[in-house]
Amino acid sequence: MTQTRLVEVRQNVLKHNDVLARELRTRFEQAGVFVASFVSSPGSGKTAFLEKTLTMLRPNYRVAALVGDLATENDAARLARAEVPVKQIVTGTICHLEANMVENALADWGLNELDCLFIENVGNLVCPSSYDLGEALRVVLMSTTEGEDKPRKYPTIFNTADVAVITKMDLAQACEFDLQTAHSSIQAVRPGMKIFEVSSKTGAGMDEWLEFLDAKGISLSKCRKITKRNRQL
Amino acid sequence: MTQTRLVEVRQNVLKHNDVLARELRTRFEQAGVFVASFVSSPGSGKTAFLEKTLTMLRPNYRVAALVGDLATENDAARLARAEVPVKQIVTGTICHLEANMVENALADWGLNELDCLFIENVGNLVCPSSYDLGEALRVVLMSTTEGEDKPRKYPTIFNTADVAVITKMDLAQACEFDLQTAHSSIQAVRPGMKIFEVSSKTGAGMDEWLEFLDAKGISLSKCRKITKRNRQL
Repeated sequence: MTQTRLVEVRQNVLKHNDVLARELRTRFEQAGVFVASFVSSPGSGKTAFLEKTLTMLRPNYRVAALVGDLATENDAARLARAEVPVKQIVTGTICHLEANMVENALADWGLNELDCLFIENVGNLVCPSSYDLGEALRVVLMSTTEGEDKPRKYPTIFNTADVAVITKMDLAQACEFDLQTAHSSIQAVRPGMKIFEVSSKTGAGMDEWLEFLDAKGISLSKCRKITKRNRQL
Repeated sequence: MTQTRLVEVRQNVLKHNDVLARELRTRFEQAGVFVASFVSSPGSGKTAFLEKTLTMLRPNYRVAALVGDLATENDAARLARAEVPVKQIVTGTICHLEANMVENALADWGLNELDCLFIENVGNLVCPSSYDLGEALRVVLMSTTEGEDKPRKYPTIFNTADVAVITKMDLAQACEFDLQTAHSSIQAVRPGMKIFEVSSKTGAGMDEWLEFLDAKGISLSKCRKITKRNRQL
């Protein structure tokens, strides 16, 4: 009975989150900001991959990041090295980011000043899947050190993501990681999903990833042009 | 408002779980079964470590395992290689095990036939921390591939655990894992916590872990003697 009540109340929270996320999505689109979120297990290399991405995008785009964690400001401190605006969202005991946390974190940022915003979720392959953050692209990361079967074990998060990134490719051999099995696992859960294979350490695979983001950036520029035109009116 | 309601309902679920877990703990003690649970991120090597532990304990103890996952029976299939009773608990969308899942899974097992029961939780460094499963020992695992800062980022799960195991020590060098920093992180969150360093692949560190379990086994044998005496009465 209590369990049923929990499900009911949780559904209300999710509904409320969806409304807020839709509002955020509209705001992002109107401001011409392309927003991507990263989800993965703890320690899959989200922050390293984000740092590399921010550093490589910075010359061409005005980029920024929000990073979620239960505790510590470690990730924001690491990302400060990319010399772009970064804000840490400390969630306390909450196991995922919610749209209202993103909204609050953005309160004193001018969205019109940004081209791309990255949101790094709390390390968790389960709970973030239910919470829309208003992002245009949800990226699920899995590292070669975690094994090939994660998509089959955590299907919901792979189903709610748009693209997958296999990280720590430099460790694939040491971990006896079977790339073909990993691809099969992802495709079994989400057929046709685009997959990137990267190493934040060596930089391998980053070009393909950035080209993909760049292609997204084209539609983004269009949005920005509209915004600029609106401003001129 | 809805968020407050969610917290209230969740507290009731937790209270209900605590009552069930206490009952389970009493049943385990009365049956003389030593119960240890494993928690960690997805892909930290819980199943490999559990398989090694079961295989090495089997000659001296009657061991069994319950393994939790959102989907798939992969872990139970892997653990079948240890040739001990294993049952998979498929949680669906629930991000952690609860006491009632353990109780249901044990319904057709004779606890008196067991010395040690291992419970592998869903891979999640956040949510399982709140749910007592009636275990005598909660073991938190972190792998060398995840980085040294996990205890500081996920302090609650380290605080609710009794011992920590650093897994995949064979990959420590390839990952440039700083063992001293990892120890400091754990001790900062939970001073005095016992830490094991193991490699399920090479077997390194397993002896110390088994000696520790064996020492726990002494008190377990005492319990069993009582149980046996009770049976003779």
